[in-house]
Amino acid sequence: MTELSEATVARLPVYLRVLSELAASRTRVVSSDELAALAGVGPAQVRRDLAPLGPNGVRGVGYDVDALQRRITDVLGLTREWPVVIVGAGHLGQALAGYAAFAERGFCIRALLDTDPALVGTTIAGHPVEPADRLEEVVAATGASIAVIATPPAAAQAVCDRLVAAGVGSILSFAPVLLVVPPAVDVRQVDLSAELTVLAFHGQRRDALPAERVPAERVPGGDA
Amino acid sequence: MTELSEATVARLPVYLRVLSELAASRTRVVSSDELAALAGVGPAQVRRDLAPLGPNGVRGVGYDVDALQRRITDVLGLTREWPVVIVGAGHLGQALAGYAAFAERGFCIRALLDTDPALVGTTIAGHPVEPADRLEEVVAATGASIAVIATPPAAAQAVCDRLVAAGVGSILSFAPVLLVVPPAVDVRQVDLSAELTVLAFHGQRRDALPAERVPAERVPGGDA
Repeated sequence: MTELSEATVARLPVYLRVLSELAASRTRVVSSDELAALAGVGPAQVRRDLAPLGPNGVRGVGYDVDALQRRITDVLGLTREWPVVIVGAGHLGQALAGYAAFAERGFCIRALLDTDPALVGTTIAGHPVEPADRLEEVVAATGASIAVIATPPAAAQAVCDRLVAAGVGSILSFAPVLLVVPPAVDVRQVDLSAELTVLAFHGQRRDALPAERVPAERVPGGDA
Repeated sequence: MTELSEATVARLPVYLRVLSELAASRTRVVSSDELAALAGVGPAQVRRDLAPLGPNGVRGVGYDVDALQRRITDVLGLTREWPVVIVGAGHLGQALAGYAAFAERGFCIRALLDTDPALVGTTIAGHPVEPADRLEEVVAATGASIAVIATPPAAAQAVCDRLVAAGVGSILSFAPVLLVVPPAVDVRQVDLSAELTVLAFHGQRRDALPAERVPAERVPGGDA
């Protein structure tokens, strides 16, 4: 398979989300223009991103929703199960533990950990909350290669260090701090305010323009 | 100012997050290579994205962290306050209501709404939870132009329709369903599993390669 750029890899989950939503609404074929509008990117970008994945479309008609969904799932490695542990069982950790889209993509939450004695021993979304000092044992027992950090910012680096020492190679952090890791460890950060920021940028532009002059490309999530 | 592409606008909040983390760790100058590594994009991309913002760097030295932070804040329209309402006060809504990074960027949560009688009337992160049937009144009273949908998927479209009818122009949805809105309304969706998907892709590649052959560009969150 052709090598995919990081930027393409980051957009494939977006296409996958749109395709699964289209499949849920029983749409069988989607044009690259429609897919682009729903994903919030340009149509030429969609075609460039999807071309290396091989033929998934019918020229002049569009992409086969099911076939393209299967192809992207396969390319992204989502055909297997990925055991995941979540460190931090506050509101965010609890929301993540109950997030149905994780399981659909093969991410199986195997454990939650927290330091709060009021949470340890309770059950969240079917998972007992383990004490944080058992982190190393829990990683070993679950075989987790992916961990989610949903702790307060001040605790994130120490938790990250322990996860890395326990052999976790992929870390998703919701804590707004820079995490220092060895080069072989893959860290990604989620900034929940990033999308709000993009909305603010558009809102500011919209406020500054008469309504009829707002160009269509400013409303990527709009009705396609 | 030069027109910014949608893709650049989407990356500016990422740079802003990295810059504020660098500022918090008292770093005053950052090279485009370091900024690129921390943001998980290529150095050439960083330079292309930041060039239209005017001179913020010293050639051969790097960007001034504070100056660039101020410049991006200004370009993104984050120098004003944006009143925000959150619909859905479950775990995710509660996590968002307490998310400190929102306030830092000027997003002021003005109200939470929910249908659950057990939540209505309680106080979350300093905000009383309002009954969802008061949505129109709450939007008018708070002057919110941005709303966050953190409801179950089945409720999201109906909530979205009511927000749009109440005059909200920008909607951030965490519900994994396609929302249909008039063209003038800006909708963005957050897929909490997207970043996990990218980690899985890298993890799969890493598993398939001898450790020493994992190329450096596969670990964008790695030590810069």
